[in-house]
Amino acid sequence: MRLSILLRDGFTALDIVGGYEVLANLPGMDVEFVAPAAGLVWADTRRLALQAWRTYAQADATDILYVPGGPGVKPGLDDAELMATIVRLHKASTWTVGICNGVEWLGKAGVILGKEVTTNWACREAVAAYGAKVNNQRYHRDGKIVTGAGVSASIDASLFLAGILAGEDVAKTLQLGIEYYPAPPFGNGTPDDAPATAQALVRQFEAAGPRRIQALASSIPQVSNQ
Amino acid sequence: MRLSILLRDGFTALDIVGGYEVLANLPGMDVEFVAPAAGLVWADTRRLALQAWRTYAQADATDILYVPGGPGVKPGLDDAELMATIVRLHKASTWTVGICNGVEWLGKAGVILGKEVTTNWACREAVAAYGAKVNNQRYHRDGKIVTGAGVSASIDASLFLAGILAGEDVAKTLQLGIEYYPAPPFGNGTPDDAPATAQALVRQFEAAGPRRIQALASSIPQVSNQ
Repeated sequence: MRLSILLRDGFTALDIVGGYEVLANLPGMDVEFVAPAAGLVWADTRRLALQAWRTYAQADATDILYVPGGPGVKPGLDDAELMATIVRLHKASTWTVGICNGVEWLGKAGVILGKEVTTNWACREAVAAYGAKVNNQRYHRDGKIVTGAGVSASIDASLFLAGILAGEDVAKTLQLGIEYYPAPPFGNGTPDDAPATAQALVRQFEAAGPRRIQALASSIPQVSNQ
Repeated sequence: MRLSILLRDGFTALDIVGGYEVLANLPGMDVEFVAPAAGLVWADTRRLALQAWRTYAQADATDILYVPGGPGVKPGLDDAELMATIVRLHKASTWTVGICNGVEWLGKAGVILGKEVTTNWACREAVAAYGAKVNNQRYHRDGKIVTGAGVSASIDASLFLAGILAGEDVAKTLQLGIEYYPAPPFGNGTPDDAPATAQALVRQFEAAGPRRIQALASSIPQVSNQ
């Protein structure tokens, strides 16, 4: 079974790795990282890069299409090749996973029209504008589309999908493998319960995201063994 | 402030990215990925690679030394350059973070002798053998050493450290930024409560880890834009 993770400049790393760490460890799963070009793709911090070895053009079919989010999502909405890749892989996929504001890409690609989804708490309106019904759950399934809330919800959404694919016993084994028995030091709850100042700061940070990653692009580290 | 994340062949990606996503977003934080050589370092699945751009030899000092785990930890115990790097950076650091069985590296390097730490549930005995007192907490602080339990505990441990570094309001803002309000689909609990079959399977999988990553090394993808 193939898991195809879409990469594009300015992703948020935990959107990807939270789900990857669960799904890649399912027995028989192969994983590919797919990007506009093979090679390094840099995250929103400009300090972490993942290696892609398939291009969008090379990706013809997959079992699980995995679409992460990050500040790179807004610029990606105008990327016709990305949108065509999502449409093509979603048509072929058994499952399509959207995480965080990556669900906006699914919206722009037209694949969640009339579907119920969740997404990052700060972009529920943006996703709803694509004709999806947006809820505030941690993860949600509508047909073959599994969506997760923001960033770390990629873990919960992927454990949920693993349970469907391989059963609860296997999913619990994966949960133990990544020791996912969370104990957030400042309490659990929901994003809607977070302090108003935190909400305002995060909304501001996220609104500035596309400009920030563009400004930081020149600071991407150069490799040196000297 | 500099966060130095140690990379070595066969790491577990979520050990790194869970903590990175919290700490890298602290105001004023810079992040470096440090490895035996600059370039790609492959994770335990042989499907994900992170880019390192500083070598162990280039890393002279840091504020936060971050030591992740994975199946690559056992082979790394015999890596004299790695051990010297940990000793050197720990001496210079304000904080040293050990995640999962990466705490074994701290043990071998001699920096947790007589200290209280937590670690991956499956390697508590291995860490205790280095003269540390091992507990079963999600995260723990002893002086400047902050340790996390397995893999995803890197998130909780790093939020805890962020709270110390920047205060609870900032830590809660980071928590909202990564939307960390976990809802594991098959319940929360502790690794010690996991089903016995899951425990046996994970122990077996982890014991075979060093052989598995060696066997899979030949399957590392080659980059092609064709």
